[in-house]
Amino acid sequence: MANSKFEYVKAFERDDRILPSTWIVVRIDGRGFHKFTERHGFTKPNDARALHLMNAVAMEVVKDLPDIVLSYGISDEYSFVLKRNTTLFERRESKIVTTIVSNFTANYIYMWPDYFPETKLQRPLPTFDGRAVPYPTTHILRDYMRWRQVDAHINNLYNTTFWALIQQGGMTAAEAEKELAHTLSADKNEILFSRFGINYNKEDEMYKKGSVIFREFEKGKEVDGGEDVPDERMTKSQLEKRKKAYKKSQIVVRFVDIMNDPFYDERPWILGTAKE
Amino acid sequence: MANSKFEYVKAFERDDRILPSTWIVVRIDGRGFHKFTERHGFTKPNDARALHLMNAVAMEVVKDLPDIVLSYGISDEYSFVLKRNTTLFERRESKIVTTIVSNFTANYIYMWPDYFPETKLQRPLPTFDGRAVPYPTTHILRDYMRWRQVDAHINNLYNTTFWALIQQGGMTAAEAEKELAHTLSADKNEILFSRFGINYNKEDEMYKKGSVIFREFEKGKEVDGGEDVPDERMTKSQLEKRKKAYKKSQIVVRFVDIMNDPFYDERPWILGTAKE
Amino acid sequence: MANSKFEYVKAFERDDRILPSTWIVVRIDGRGFHKFTERHGFTKPNDARALHLMNAVAMEVVKDLPDIVLSYGISDEYSFVLKRNTTLFERRESKIVTTIVSNFTANYIYMWPDYFPETKLQRPLPTFDGRAVPYPTTHILRDYMRWRQVDAHINNLYNTTFWALIQQGGMTAAEAEKELAHTLSADKNEILFSRFGINYNKEDEMYKKGSVIFREFEKGKEVDGGEDVPDERMTKSQLEKRKKAYKKSQIVVRFVDIMNDPFYDERPWILGTAKE
Amino acid sequence: MANSKFEYVKAFERDDRILPSTWIVVRIDGRGFHKFTERHGFTKPNDARALHLMNAVAMEVVKDLPDIVLSYGISDEYSFVLKRNTTLFERRESKIVTTIVSNFTANYIYMWPDYFPETKLQRPLPTFDGRAVPYPTTHILRDYMRWRQVDAHINNLYNTTFWALIQQGGMTAAEAEKELAHTLSADKNEILFSRFGINYNKEDEMYKKGSVIFREFEKGKEVDGGEDVPDERMTKSQLEKRKKAYKKSQIVVRFVDIMNDPFYDERPWILGTAKE
Repeated sequence: MANSKFEYVKAFERDDRILPSTWIVVRIDGRGFHKFTERHGFTKPNDARALHLMNAVAMEVVKDLPDIVLSYGISDEYSFVLKRNTTLFERRESKIVTTIVSNFTANYIYMWPDYFPETKLQRPLPTFDGRAVPYPTTHILRDYMRWRQVDAHINNLYNTTFWALIQQGGMTAAEAEKELAHTLSADKNEILFSRFGINYNKEDEMYKKGSVIFREFEKGKEVDGGEDVPDERMTKSQLEKRKKAYKKSQIVVRFVDIMNDPFYDERPWILGTAKE
Repeated sequence: MANSKFEYVKAFERDDRILPSTWIVVRIDGRGFHKFTERHGFTKPNDARALHLMNAVAMEVVKDLPDIVLSYGISDEYSFVLKRNTTLFERRESKIVTTIVSNFTANYIYMWPDYFPETKLQRPLPTFDGRAVPYPTTHILRDYMRWRQVDAHINNLYNTTFWALIQQGGMTAAEAEKELAHTLSADKNEILFSRFGINYNKEDEMYKKGSVIFREFEKGKEVDGGEDVPDERMTKSQLEKRKKAYKKSQIVVRFVDIMNDPFYDERPWILGTAKE
Repeated sequence: MANSKFEYVKAFERDDRILPSTWIVVRIDGRGFHKFTERHGFTKPNDARALHLMNAVAMEVVKDLPDIVLSYGISDEYSFVLKRNTTLFERRESKIVTTIVSNFTANYIYMWPDYFPETKLQRPLPTFDGRAVPYPTTHILRDYMRWRQVDAHINNLYNTTFWALIQQGGMTAAEAEKELAHTLSADKNEILFSRFGINYNKEDEMYKKGSVIFREFEKGKEVDGGEDVPDERMTKSQLEKRKKAYKKSQIVVRFVDIMNDPFYDERPWILGTAKE
Repeated sequence: MANSKFEYVKAFERDDRILPSTWIVVRIDGRGFHKFTERHGFTKPNDARALHLMNAVAMEVVKDLPDIVLSYGISDEYSFVLKRNTTLFERRESKIVTTIVSNFTANYIYMWPDYFPETKLQRPLPTFDGRAVPYPTTHILRDYMRWRQVDAHINNLYNTTFWALIQQGGMTAAEAEKELAHTLSADKNEILFSRFGINYNKEDEMYKKGSVIFREFEKGKEVDGGEDVPDERMTKSQLEKRKKAYKKSQIVVRFVDIMNDPFYDERPWILGTAKE
């Protein structure tokens, strides 16, 4: 930007760098997706094409920003975890959040035809908002992941039962809602099984668990992503080594438990080994 | 979101509401557009198709968010001014910025084929980052607009001369850069005219002035957009009246001076009449 | 501070500069003053010695920080208005607030014996907390001042009646509270007058209006304090002139109306003449 | 505060709660203490009375705010560490910082005559500014403490040598400064020893190490202060037990090493046992 006497207006910009040494979670959410999914004929309660599209889009975001060590998607939302010591964009909140949101949106529109070849996108277009939240300890970050996965479970069980009552039980939405008011998980499982012969445990893992994106390395060639060493403090050869290992690593989507230790214990490169 | 004992993690979200009664400017910028424009064969120094695409995209954003009273675009950036008393998303910064960025990005990808029918979009896709800045007085907001328009002028004069030296003068980029080092505006005008017969004043207004988007009303049916009355304090009939007037109003793009008073004096509905 | 490899911990300090070009109000409040006043035998409903002490203390703060253009005190609170373009401590919030709070506290303890010569200060000592709030327009700042003066009036009328019921009417605190529940201003005036012969209008102006501190200049030698010119943009001779005028000016305490225009119109150097 | 239509001005106050689950350090600094110490005849390089006053004052602050688990003072500054899960004042930054600053200032003025019985306090009075900084991990908090203690050492060695050169060596301040430019620690130790017969290691521990304030418990009756359990999650009997233990505990000042593990390992109630 060129100099001028009006440049003083830049002084009104706030320094929005996120507290160092905290895990940064960027969560994005579809705006007005209830109507959007109706207008575009999404299958209920889950539309596999739409979820695979979300996952493919998230993969592109992760490829673009290697400091993302873990991502988790359910329904029309996705959470991206940046490694604790990331210095991406000097940790500036606006820059981080808008870059991820823009990247996600661009890919969603761009890849839409691959997943919905027969449904043309119509206005209002799908868009996403986002926010960044810092988590000071790995323990609390782990609870964040649990929060989202519990949410996924509760919502999916509800939706599966709700739509079974409508699609197979012939109820209206209002009737189904009333039927499910004050029911517990066990009740919903029972409704599904006794009335519709659905064993919830056998439902698609992607629907029940949500989608988890992370890096897998060849055995013995693991490189720590979430480790407590900022890039600036790594030597050139360390950075080079990681870069190579990253290239050979594979970004994968899995539908697995992230509530408990095994997932993290088996992949210490994701959040590191520090127990907090 | 369902309840669970992990929900405490929400307490780590910051309340990011922007100071009330300030003008909010959201400025978005293309990320890595230098390479993007090269890969997609943009005409230099200005590509009319690309600028018209930016304008069409910004129009969609303005249609979607009627609290935007003024927008200004140059090159790969766009500024959106929200009215002083907007309560859009409770003035939450992340929500406002990401919504605008996502909306802009979605439309850019979606409308690309209309403006570049012969150029398929290739990865890395065009994306935008953004930030929100509050301005406490109309005077300083006016200086913000001046800052951007002065920038537009300086950059366009430089680029026009730079590319003339290359495209018509046969220089390399390095030679052109050297030639222009330490030159003043008058010098560049002179180079353009004497060497290439270009009268800079006759260049396209869109290139020289940038693009200004705002609402025009039928004479006598103006409704104040930037006025100092928050929606909550308006009566139902006032809100209704404004809504109707908005529907009949036209969102327009003009390539005009926004440095001086006439633009605002003739359209008091944009920033109000308060002189600060 | 000396250099060391541990100095990186400074990076966790947040940049807390307050938005430029806003009026900054620092309001301080006595902590636990209810008990403090009881322990130190304050006269109820108002203790003139205590209020004069508060005013004398505030005067010292104003002398120390000439960028304070207006102050207003009631009961155990004081508001200090810094001029819109102050660059005091680079507008860093913590620095501004703690300096004022510390200065106020130091003077309160130091000057206590002058106002309470027969009452020794006892632990817990009187302390004050504080906060800074930015106001983007003069109009809203004026409303802030109105808010505090309306508060002063409502509280003082209530307290005056409450203590008359107790001290002269022989009620208990609970009875007085019950008596006053749901009464309007007119009712309280009536109680005071008909039962106790007190004409509220004739009560001490300091109790009814609160205390206003500002600068008075000799006629013709006024210097604008709240004006829209930051110190950095003033010439040396302008700064010198103001310094001289300040020295000759007098900081005064008055018990006057700050709800309406006359106070400000007659003293344009306080908030400037800009009508917002 | 009474209700009025002007109360909307409260909406301009920012929610300034500090990120949960971070260690909060409040550091206060004397304002203009260079001149203050000269005017009040402080002994150079260290004035024992002044340091004991600082320590006594800090003790009062710690007594008043039991969530402070560790404090450290050097020269005219003091750092107070609040336990990681403190909910003091809902973690509101302004409230926490101003309360500590005000409390410190009040006690400094109040206790002055006990430590300087023959020196009357003169204006400008001693005041302190302060700031709060959140630290996300115990490791980084430990580095903060190291930073301050290294600073204490470096400054005290410099000052001790500087004043020996002046007081015993007959140099001017400028000469002493020049003499010390570019010297290392070993050089200063050598100057002290060879020229003035001073063995720096035998200097007063308070000067060399600074002052550390914390709680000591009777053996077997320790109660964790910095532990990771917020008060709200403790049972009544746990809270009661801690309160009793606190009453029996002793707040002490020690001049000891806080760079290395032993201090913390022997007192796990200060920062907890979590190794981060």
